[in-house]
Amino acid sequence: MIRIGIVGYGYWGPNVARNFSSADGCRVVRICDGNRDVLGRAQKAFPGVETTTELNQLVEAPDIDAIAVVTPVSTHFDLAKRALENGKHVFVEKPFTATSAQALELIEVAERRNLKIMVDHTFLFTGAVRKIKQLVDEGVMGNIYYYDSTRVNLGLFQHDVNVIWDLAPHDISIMDHVIAEKPEAILATGKNHFSDYEYVAYVTIYFSNNVIGHLNVNWLSPVKVRTTLLGGEKKMLVWNDLDSDEKVKVYDKGVEIENRQGVYDLLVSYRSGDMWSPKLDQTEALKLETEQFIECIRNGGKPLNDGWAGYRVVQMLEAADRSIKNRGELVWL
Amino acid sequence: MIRIGIVGYGYWGPNVARNFSSADGCRVVRICDGNRDVLGRAQKAFPGVETTTELNQLVEAPDIDAIAVVTPVSTHFDLAKRALENGKHVFVEKPFTATSAQALELIEVAERRNLKIMVDHTFLFTGAVRKIKQLVDEGVMGNIYYYDSTRVNLGLFQHDVNVIWDLAPHDISIMDHVIAEKPEAILATGKNHFSDYEYVAYVTIYFSNNVIGHLNVNWLSPVKVRTTLLGGEKKMLVWNDLDSDEKVKVYDKGVEIENRQGVYDLLVSYRSGDMWSPKLDQTEALKLETEQFIECIRNGGKPLNDGWAGYRVVQMLEAADRSIKNRGELVWL
Amino acid sequence: MIRIGIVGYGYWGPNVARNFSSADGCRVVRICDGNRDVLGRAQKAFPGVETTTELNQLVEAPDIDAIAVVTPVSTHFDLAKRALENGKHVFVEKPFTATSAQALELIEVAERRNLKIMVDHTFLFTGAVRKIKQLVDEGVMGNIYYYDSTRVNLGLFQHDVNVIWDLAPHDISIMDHVIAEKPEAILATGKNHFSDYEYVAYVTIYFSNNVIGHLNVNWLSPVKVRTTLLGGEKKMLVWNDLDSDEKVKVYDKGVEIENRQGVYDLLVSYRSGDMWSPKLDQTEALKLETEQFIECIRNGGKPLNDGWAGYRVVQMLEAADRSIKNRGELVWL
Amino acid sequence: MIRIGIVGYGYWGPNVARNFSSADGCRVVRICDGNRDVLGRAQKAFPGVETTTELNQLVEAPDIDAIAVVTPVSTHFDLAKRALENGKHVFVEKPFTATSAQALELIEVAERRNLKIMVDHTFLFTGAVRKIKQLVDEGVMGNIYYYDSTRVNLGLFQHDVNVIWDLAPHDISIMDHVIAEKPEAILATGKNHFSDYEYVAYVTIYFSNNVIGHLNVNWLSPVKVRTTLLGGEKKMLVWNDLDSDEKVKVYDKGVEIENRQGVYDLLVSYRSGDMWSPKLDQTEALKLETEQFIECIRNGGKPLNDGWAGYRVVQMLEAADRSIKNRGELVWL
Repeated sequence: MIRIGIVGYGYWGPNVARNFSSADGCRVVRICDGNRDVLGRAQKAFPGVETTTELNQLVEAPDIDAIAVVTPVSTHFDLAKRALENGKHVFVEKPFTATSAQALELIEVAERRNLKIMVDHTFLFTGAVRKIKQLVDEGVMGNIYYYDSTRVNLGLFQHDVNVIWDLAPHDISIMDHVIAEKPEAILATGKNHFSDYEYVAYVTIYFSNNVIGHLNVNWLSPVKVRTTLLGGEKKMLVWNDLDSDEKVKVYDKGVEIENRQGVYDLLVSYRSGDMWSPKLDQTEALKLETEQFIECIRNGGKPLNDGWAGYRVVQMLEAADRSIKNRGELVWL
Repeated sequence: MIRIGIVGYGYWGPNVARNFSSADGCRVVRICDGNRDVLGRAQKAFPGVETTTELNQLVEAPDIDAIAVVTPVSTHFDLAKRALENGKHVFVEKPFTATSAQALELIEVAERRNLKIMVDHTFLFTGAVRKIKQLVDEGVMGNIYYYDSTRVNLGLFQHDVNVIWDLAPHDISIMDHVIAEKPEAILATGKNHFSDYEYVAYVTIYFSNNVIGHLNVNWLSPVKVRTTLLGGEKKMLVWNDLDSDEKVKVYDKGVEIENRQGVYDLLVSYRSGDMWSPKLDQTEALKLETEQFIECIRNGGKPLNDGWAGYRVVQMLEAADRSIKNRGELVWL
Repeated sequence: MIRIGIVGYGYWGPNVARNFSSADGCRVVRICDGNRDVLGRAQKAFPGVETTTELNQLVEAPDIDAIAVVTPVSTHFDLAKRALENGKHVFVEKPFTATSAQALELIEVAERRNLKIMVDHTFLFTGAVRKIKQLVDEGVMGNIYYYDSTRVNLGLFQHDVNVIWDLAPHDISIMDHVIAEKPEAILATGKNHFSDYEYVAYVTIYFSNNVIGHLNVNWLSPVKVRTTLLGGEKKMLVWNDLDSDEKVKVYDKGVEIENRQGVYDLLVSYRSGDMWSPKLDQTEALKLETEQFIECIRNGGKPLNDGWAGYRVVQMLEAADRSIKNRGELVWL
Repeated sequence: MIRIGIVGYGYWGPNVARNFSSADGCRVVRICDGNRDVLGRAQKAFPGVETTTELNQLVEAPDIDAIAVVTPVSTHFDLAKRALENGKHVFVEKPFTATSAQALELIEVAERRNLKIMVDHTFLFTGAVRKIKQLVDEGVMGNIYYYDSTRVNLGLFQHDVNVIWDLAPHDISIMDHVIAEKPEAILATGKNHFSDYEYVAYVTIYFSNNVIGHLNVNWLSPVKVRTTLLGGEKKMLVWNDLDSDEKVKVYDKGVEIENRQGVYDLLVSYRSGDMWSPKLDQTEALKLETEQFIECIRNGGKPLNDGWAGYRVVQMLEAADRSIKNRGELVWL
C-alpha cells in the first residue's frame, strides 16, 4: 500500500486527491495547503484524510511514501527536492521546474536514491493522445510533416509566468511524446500588455526529422479553441478537444508529387478520400496516470512521463522564453 | 463610358469580366488570353466581346481606357507598365508586383500620367471586412491588441510562389486597411517539402501601435479554415468566413486591470457579456470593387486599394520572404 | 432549519442531495435507498448524514420536515402520499405521477394540510429557460407561433415507460411555463421495436392561442440533439442546449404580410437582421430550484413548479400516450 | 441528337437549361416563358437558343423531341399532357402533378405512346443519396428502423401550395427510393397563419416493413436545417446536407437486446464504435439526372424517377394534405 501525501489543494489538487484516493494499491494519508479554507474543503471531501498547513508533516513524515506536488511552478524544485531527499517518490505538476538546471538536479537526486519522478503531463493519458500516438507509431499517418496547435481562451492570467509557461506545456509534452524526435531550434514571438508577461505567443519548433511544430497560445481570445492539426504523408488528422463526440478525425487526404523535372513540371496531385473518427477510450486521463505512478513505484517501471520528459519540456519552455525576450531570436537546443 | 480590356481569363478572370460587364458606366471591349480554349470559353460567356491572343490589341489599343491584369504575379509589372505607358488605367490582381521596387515604379508612372491603379484586394469590399473596419473606426472595439488569422486548406500548390505569396496577401491587405498603422517588423517561419516553396508558414507582424498580427497559412491542411480573431480593449471578435450565416461575431468580453501595485497584486478581472452577430451586406465584393474603380476613373477619386496599398502589401511579403529564408530572422521595415 | 429526507440515491439522487446539503436554511438528515451499495456511496459522499433502507425512518420520522422523492415514477404516488399524510412537504422527481388522477389526489392532500409540493422540472430554473421566459414575457418575441423541440440521443432505454414519459416532460413543462396557455389537443405518433415501449415519438400539441408545439423524442439516435426553435412574430430564437457558450440565439428575423387582396396578391416580405446571443446566468438550475423549495416552505410562497404544474404535465403525457396507442388519434384535453 | 424544349425559365429553369445544354447527345432548341424579361435573360445566357412566349412553338413543334416542364405544379398536367399527345417525352418538375389522378393519366398516355416521363427528383442523383442508397442496399445499415428529416428555413412562402407540397417532395422521393417499401398510412399536423396554407407541418409515414418516417418542414425557421437521421439495426447515419465536407456520417452505434424474459428482464446493451464519413461524388446531381433522361430516350431504359415514382410521391402528398386538413387524421394508402 503506497501512502500518498498531497501538497497543494487549489485548482488541480482536488482532482489529484480524488484519483489517488480511488486508485488501488495506494492511500492518501495527508493533504497540506497554506490556506485553512482550502484545507476545510479538503477535509469535507476526504473525511478520512488528515490535513495540515505544515509541509514538514508531509515531506519528512515517515508514514508517507510519495508526495504529489500540486503547487505553483516556482515552488516545485524546493518541494520535490526535500521530498526526494527524504526518500519519497514525487508526482509533480507541469511544468516540472522553473529551470532545466533544476530539472536535472531533481533527476540526479531521484536516480541516486532510486526514486520515481512523474511529471503530470496529463494529456498523454487521454484517449485522444493515446489514439494519435498509436496511429503515428503504427505508420498509419506516414511520415509527419507538421504539428500545429491552437490553444486559446479568455484568461486565466497567471501572475508569475507568461502564456507559454501556462498553456504550451500541454502541446510540447504531446509533441515530445508523439513525434519522439529531438527538437533542434525554437523561436517564439508574442506580446505583453497588462504586465511583464506575454498574453499571446506563437512558438515554432524545428525538429531534427524535418517536422515543424507550431503553437498559438493566447489568454485573450473571446472563444475557446483547442485544435491540433497533424499533417502526415499518408493521412492527416484534426484533434478538436472541445468536440465531445468526435475529438479525433483522420482524413485520407494528402498530396503526391508525381514528377520532378524542374519546378515548373512539378505535378502535384491531391488525394481526397474518406474521413474516419475512431472511438476513443473515455477513461479519465488522470486516473490512468496516477495508476501508472503507483504501478511504477510498486514494480520498478519507468513512467512514460518521467523526470526526463519533464526536463525536455522545461528545456523547450526556457528556449521559447529566451526567444520571445529577444523578439523572435532563433534559439538552438 | 469606360472601355475595359481584360488580360488573363483563367481562374479569376471570368469573375472580373462578369463584374465589369454588368457594372454601369463601363463596357468590356476585348479579352486576351494565350490559351485558345480559354478564349473560346470567354467568347461563349460574353458573345459581344472580342477575344484575342495578341496583347498589343489591348495594351496599345486606342479604343481601350483601362486594363484589368488578371495573370500570374510574375507578369504584372511588364503588363501594367505597358498599359500605363499607353495611357491606360490598370486594375491589377493581388499581389500587385513581384517586388516592392516594381510597385514603386508603377506608382511613379501612374502618378506622372495621372492614371489610376487599383490592386484587387477583393476582401476589403466584403460585408465582413467593411463591418469590421466600421467597428474599429467607430471605437466599438476599443484599442486593438492583436489580429490573428488562420487560412489553411488542402492545395492548391503554386509552382512559382510559396504559400505566403499565395494566401497571406488577403490578411496583410486587411490588416493594412483595418489596423491602418505602420508595420515595424516582420518575422516568418515555415517549411518546404515538395519543392523549394514553403507549404506552411507562420508570419508575425509587429505594428508601431503595439498591435501584433499573426498569420497561419498552410497548403497541406485536411480541413479548410478561414478564421480571424481580433482582440480589442472593449470588444473581441471572431470572423469565420466559412460560416454562411454568422460570419462575424462580436463578443462583449475583455479583461480589466484594476490594481497594479507590483505584479503579485495584479487584479485581473474578466468581463463576459452578450455576443452579437451583425447582419452583413451580401453584395458581391468584386461588384463593389469594380464599381469603385470605374467611379475613380470617372470622377478622379483615389481607390481604397490604390497602388500604395498594393506596394505596402508587397513590401510585407518581401520582408516575410526574407525572414523565412533566414529561418525567422526579424526583418525591420 | 428545514430538515430534509431523501428517498432514492440512484442517477439523480446525488445531485438532489448535494444541492439540499449546500442550500441555506435546510439540512439533509437522512437518505434512504433499497440498495446497500448505493447507500454506501451516499454515506461516503455525505459523512454526516444517516442512511437507511427503511422508508418509515423517513416518511414517518418526526425529525424530518420535507421529503425528496427521487425514485421511479411508478412509486411517486405512494411515497409522496405517505409523506404528505405524515405532514411532510414533498419535492418529487418528474414526471410527478403515473396518472393525472394520482396528481390531483396528492394536490388535494397537500392543500388540505397546507403542505408544499414541488415537482422537479429542473429546466425551468436554467439560465436558458429563464432568459427565454423573460424574452417572451417582455414582448421581445412578439406573439409566439410555434415551439419545436428535438431531444434525441442513444439510450437509455427505460424498462417501464416509453420515450415520451422519459424525455418529453422536459419540453412539456417548459412549454407550460413559457407559452402559459391551455393546451387544447394532443396527437402523438411513434414506433416500438425492442419492447412494448415506443423508442421514438413525435408529439404535436395544439394550444388555445394558436400556438403549435412539436416534440421529437428518440432513444435511438446516433447523435445527441437538444435543440428548440421558438418562432415569434417579432423575433425567432434557437436554443441549443449542447452549445456550451451560446445556448440561446435570438434572430431579428420574421415575415410580414403587406397586402392580402386574395391569395395571389399576398405580399410576404422577410425581415432579416442581426443575431444576438444573450449572456446566461450559469448558476446550477437545481441549486436555484432547491432554494426556492426551502424558501416556499419557510415563507409560504407557491413554487413555480408546484403540484398543479406537475399535474398539467402528467395530463399531457397521458393524452400523448393515449394518442400513440391509437396510432395518432387526436386527444382533446 | 435529342432536341429539347424548355417551358419555364424562372428559379430552376436556368439550371435545367444549362445541364441539357452541356449534356452529350442532346441540344436545347427553344425556351418558352410568359415573361419577356425572363426570356431576355435566357437569350443572353444561351445565345444560340430560340426564345418564345408561345407554348405551341414547343409542345407542337416538329423539331422538338422532349419537353422540360419547369413551371408551377398547377400547370404540369396540361403542359405535360399536350407534350405527350404531340409525341414528346417529358421531364417534369417535382411534384409531378397536383393530383394522383392526373399522374396516372399522364403515365397512361406516355405508356400508350411509348414515351418517357422523368420527374425531377433531383436529390436522388446527389452523391449523398446515392451513397445512402448503396449503404442500405448492401446491408451495411441492417434493417432500417426510422427515417427522420428536418428541412426548415425562412421562406419562401408559396402562394398556391402549403409547406408540405413545397419541401416534403424531396424527402418523400428519397424515402421512396431508399426504403423502397409501400407506405401504409400517413398522418400530418401543422399550422397556417398568414394564409390558408400551412407554414409548418409534421408528417409521419408508416411503412409496411415497420419503418417509421417523419418530416419536419417549416417556412418560418430562423435557421436553415437540412438534417436526416437514418436509424438502422447495424449502423445509424446522419446526413447534414449543409455540411460542405462531411455530409454523411455513418455511426457504428446501435442497441442490442440480449434477453427478453419479460419486459423487466430486458437487457439492452448499447454498441458505440467509430464514425466514418465516406467521400461523396461531387458531380452535380442535375447533370447526372438530365444525362439519364437522354440515355433512356435513346436506349429505351426506364428512368429511376419515372412517372410511377412521381405518382407515388403525389399520392403521399395528397394523403398528407387530407390528414392535415382533418387535424391529423390517419390516412390509409
